[in-house]
Order: sequence, then structure tokens, then C-alpha cells
Amino acid sequence: MAFDRLIEGIARLQNPTVAGLDPKLDYVPASIKQACFDKYGKTLEGAAAALLEFNKAIIDNICDIVPAIKPQAAYYEMYGWQGVRALAETIAYAKSKGMFVITDGKRNDIGTTMEAYATAHLGVTEADGESFEAFGADALTVNGYLGTDGIKPLTAVCRERDKGIFVLVKTSNPSSGELQDMKLENGATVYEQMGRMCESWGEELPGKYGYSGVGAVVGATYPEQLAEMRAKAPHTFFLVPGYGAQGGGAQDAKNAFDARGLGAVINSSRGIMCAWKKQGLSEDDFAQAARTEALRMKEDILSTIGEITL
Amino acid sequence: MAFDRLIEGIARLQNPTVAGLDPKLDYVPASIKQACFDKYGKTLEGAAAALLEFNKAIIDNICDIVPAIKPQAAYYEMYGWQGVRALAETIAYAKSKGMFVITDGKRNDIGTTMEAYATAHLGVTEADGESFEAFGADALTVNGYLGTDGIKPLTAVCRERDKGIFVLVKTSNPSSGELQDMKLENGATVYEQMGRMCESWGEELPGKYGYSGVGAVVGATYPEQLAEMRAKAPHTFFLVPGYGAQGGGAQDAKNAFDARGLGAVINSSRGIMCAWKKQGLSEDDFAQAARTEALRMKEDILSTIGEITL
Repeated sequence: MAFDRLIEGIARLQNPTVAGLDPKLDYVPASIKQACFDKYGKTLEGAAAALLEFNKAIIDNICDIVPAIKPQAAYYEMYGWQGVRALAETIAYAKSKGMFVITDGKRNDIGTTMEAYATAHLGVTEADGESFEAFGADALTVNGYLGTDGIKPLTAVCRERDKGIFVLVKTSNPSSGELQDMKLENGATVYEQMGRMCESWGEELPGKYGYSGVGAVVGATYPEQLAEMRAKAPHTFFLVPGYGAQGGGAQDAKNAFDARGLGAVINSSRGIMCAWKKQGLSEDDFAQAARTEALRMKEDILSTIGEITL
Repeated sequence: MAFDRLIEGIARLQNPTVAGLDPKLDYVPASIKQACFDKYGKTLEGAAAALLEFNKAIIDNICDIVPAIKPQAAYYEMYGWQGVRALAETIAYAKSKGMFVITDGKRNDIGTTMEAYATAHLGVTEADGESFEAFGADALTVNGYLGTDGIKPLTAVCRERDKGIFVLVKTSNPSSGELQDMKLENGATVYEQMGRMCESWGEELPGKYGYSGVGAVVGATYPEQLAEMRAKAPHTFFLVPGYGAQGGGAQDAKNAFDARGLGAVINSSRGIMCAWKKQGLSEDDFAQAARTEALRMKEDILSTIGEITL
């Protein structure tokens, strides 16, 4: 089960974090941009090449200390198919460095369309007898608003290919409560109901450390709900956004973990990518600064949860 | 407002339908596939080229009778960045033929990430002073589970660039009720609550025919809910899947329209793309068969709603 691999990586590195790679062109040092524009012109191809170089430098500098990356699809789509190619190349590069890759796409649809997304991001595409991994991530974030019809095509691919999904449960943003916090007649909130569905969907993908292949996104910015869902969804592994730039701290994120220090991976995107600013360094030092921040974040979280034991 | 343009196209052609372009390689005639594989090899590039040729032939054959296409992103992502390039090229081609393009991506995220999706699909990407339309659709389907933070970045782009969005409200699939039909403590169902949010989000994008730039996806497979939401969300334009292959008929879809025959556009994907099978024709006649089916569908729906008047 894919999250067993993620959990083992977390335990080996004693680091329950994931680096979000949501690159904007503004984050990329002028020297890299200039080299790419010189090579490809001021085009989407040039921009995408710059993002890829930026990502590779960060991956090179963190792959021995951080178990996973989470590229956010939106930032690549923004640069057209050329950007989407940079996403595929970022995923392949991170995997070649032994990292676990979570594509943050929040995809959702039904039936054969969801099969197409599952195939695209986690599976194998057949073209006239030949097989290709179109994107080849280890896990994909998804939105469960459409119910079981939108999830079963994913769990089928997960079982077959040792992959996982994270379903949006309680998101980290200020307005997440507008729908998610509403109380249902059965007494549960909408996010709690979604968490129940995750527990149910996960039954067919059991993992050896107690967590299934159907995880959940629960934000660090809502520490009470994080604690509530940790208790109510004991087999559901959490992907936790909202640490750092969005305001969540280690004490908030702590609620995502079980007594063994398992059960969650905490994401930081801008905190890692733009660490050079906070550290008062030059933009050309972004990759080294990312490493320094990744180590600081690891220590910050480990200091609250203690040693991670399998 | 973008849906004014769509509504005008519908009225001009007296056809409130959209052709879903969700191409699978299996749908593409052997002659097209062979030509593309001969040119590009048995690669994702070859597969994507075949999809594009297939789409172009359908567009050529329906652009004078159908006002809009709805390419579903999943079927392009399945063929990697090469497939995503075919999506961009399909959109550009349909626009060059005067069609309105709805990218069915069901995208969702928050803040700057949603801005990136809005820029990607509806806006303009800046790269070091140069501007590019990455995908350039007229409208995008989105998922509102994350609340207002996930919608405002879209409405900003819609206002600036004359675009629209369709928010998932009541989807056409069998399990859509698992979450969407649940009753909230306030007496509304989850889908009804989402419809209310659409009405509210749409207030800042009023249209001249009474429909805002924030539309909703409501399935033809749930005709009662379609009628309910038509009454409860009077300013929300509907994108209606589920006609044809999923089981919805013209009498079901009728509930999506107001007394003028406005208020909705009905989608057919497989019905159009695979029409040659139903018509007992050769696969090489797929484009002509698509036209025949598009005309049949138009008559089928018009016969229930009558003349469309602005």
C-alpha cells in the first residue's frame, strides 16, 4: 500500500513533512530565468524550463532529508502544456531521487472520466498496445463531493499499482467552513461525514501500519477539527496543509499524529520555496535556504511529537 | 458576461446543447490512428495527435449547428502533456470556428492556487512581460467544496475577461446523493446550499438575460432536483450532463429551462462522439454521424421547450 512506503520514508528520515512545489515564476532567481529565456525565448516553454530548473535544485537539496514532494498542478497548468510537461518532469526527477510524490490536483469526476484521471496521474495509459506512465505520481489529492462513483475508479488503480489518494475533508482556508462546517441532520458536520466516507472507502486498501490507502486533507489552521478527525478517522492518513505561511504552527499540526508520531505528513510550500527571503539571503541561495528551512521545520515538528516509531 | 455570449449563440442556432469532447483512443477510427502513429510513432504524441484530428473533424461537422463544446480535461491528461497540448489545440480550433468552449476540469483550490487555475484556463499568463493564453476557454467547471476562497479568484478573472464558471451542485451520477442529498440542520440539502452559494457568488457577475456568470452543474438524471433548482436558483445558468448515454431524456432536461427556453445548456458526449455505432455506419463516418446526432438531439430538446427567445 502506497502510504506504507510514505510512512517508511517518514520513519527512516524521522521527518513527517512534504515539500510543496508550487513554483511561480516570481520565485525563480533571475539567473535561472535569463538562462531559460535565452535558450527558449520569452515563451511558455522558457518559463516552464525555469520552473523545472528551480524544482530540481530544491529536490537536489532536500531529497536526503525530506521524504516527499507535493507539486500543485495549478501552478504548472498556468504555463500551458509546456508547464504540464514540467510537472511530469518534476515528478520523474523526484522519483529518481527516491522521493514519494503527491500530485495536488484535487481531481474529481465520475465513472470512466474518473478512471481517466486515475490513469493519468497514478496509472498506466495504453496506446495501441504500448504502455506509458503519463504522470506517474504515488498519490493524488481528490475531491469527494461526487461520492463513491468518483472514488472507486481511483481505489481500483491504487490497489493494482500501489498508490494512494487524499480526499479533501477539512481544508485549511478561512472559508472552508461555509459548507464543510455545516451540521447535517444526522448530527455530523459535512467534513465529518466526508471523513466517515474516507474510512469506509479505505477499507479495501488496508495498510500495514494501520492507515489505509485513502487519506484525507485536514488543515493545520483548524487544530481542534484536526484532533477531532484524528480520533474519528483512525485509519485515515492525513495530508496537512496550512503550516507556516498560512499560520499553522507545530503545536497545531501535532493534533494530526497518533502516539507513535504516525498518521500525518505536514506540508510547507512557500515556507520552503521562498526560505531565502526569510533567511535574508540572496535569491541565488534559494536551494540551500530551502534545505535549512526543511531541517528547521523537521525539528520544529519532531520537538512536539517525539521520535517516530513504526 | 460570458454566458450572454453563450445564450446568444444558443438562441441564434436555436440549439441549447453542448458537444462533450471526451475522446478515448478507442473512439478514433483506425485510419486516423494509423496515420498519426506512422507520423509520430506509437507514442503519447501520436495518440494525442489522433485525438486532435478526431476532435477537429467533429468540430468541422457541427460548428454551424451546435453553439459550444465541452472538452473534459481528464481524457487529455490521460495522454500526458502531449494530451494536454491536444486539449489546448482543440480549444483554439473550436474558438476559431466561433464556438463557445467550456473546459470541464472541475478544478478547485484556494487563494493564489485558485488564481493559478483561473489564469491557466480562463486568464492570461504573464512571463517576464510577455502575455499568453495558456488554455483560453470561455468557461470552466469548478467544485465549490472549499467555499468562497475557492470561487472569488475565478469571479475576478471572469469579470475582467468576460468568462464564466459552472459550479458542481447536483451531479448526474448514481452516488451523487451520498453527500449532496444529505439534509442540513437549516433544512436545505447540501446541493441546495451549494445552489444558494452560486446565486450569491453570481451577484457580482450579472448578465443581460437574467443569468449570472456563475452557473451550476445539475444532472438530467435527477429531473425533480433539476426543476427544484431551476426555481430556487433563478439567476444561475445550468450545465446539464446526463442526457443520452447516462439515461436522461428530453423530458427530464426540460426542467432545466425557463419559460423562454433559456437557462441551460444540455451536454452529450458519447452520444455525439460514438453516434456512428448507433446509426450502424462505418467508424470512418463518425463526423457525419455526429452531425446527424447533434441535429436529432437539438430537435428532441426543442420539441419539448419550444422556440428559444431572448
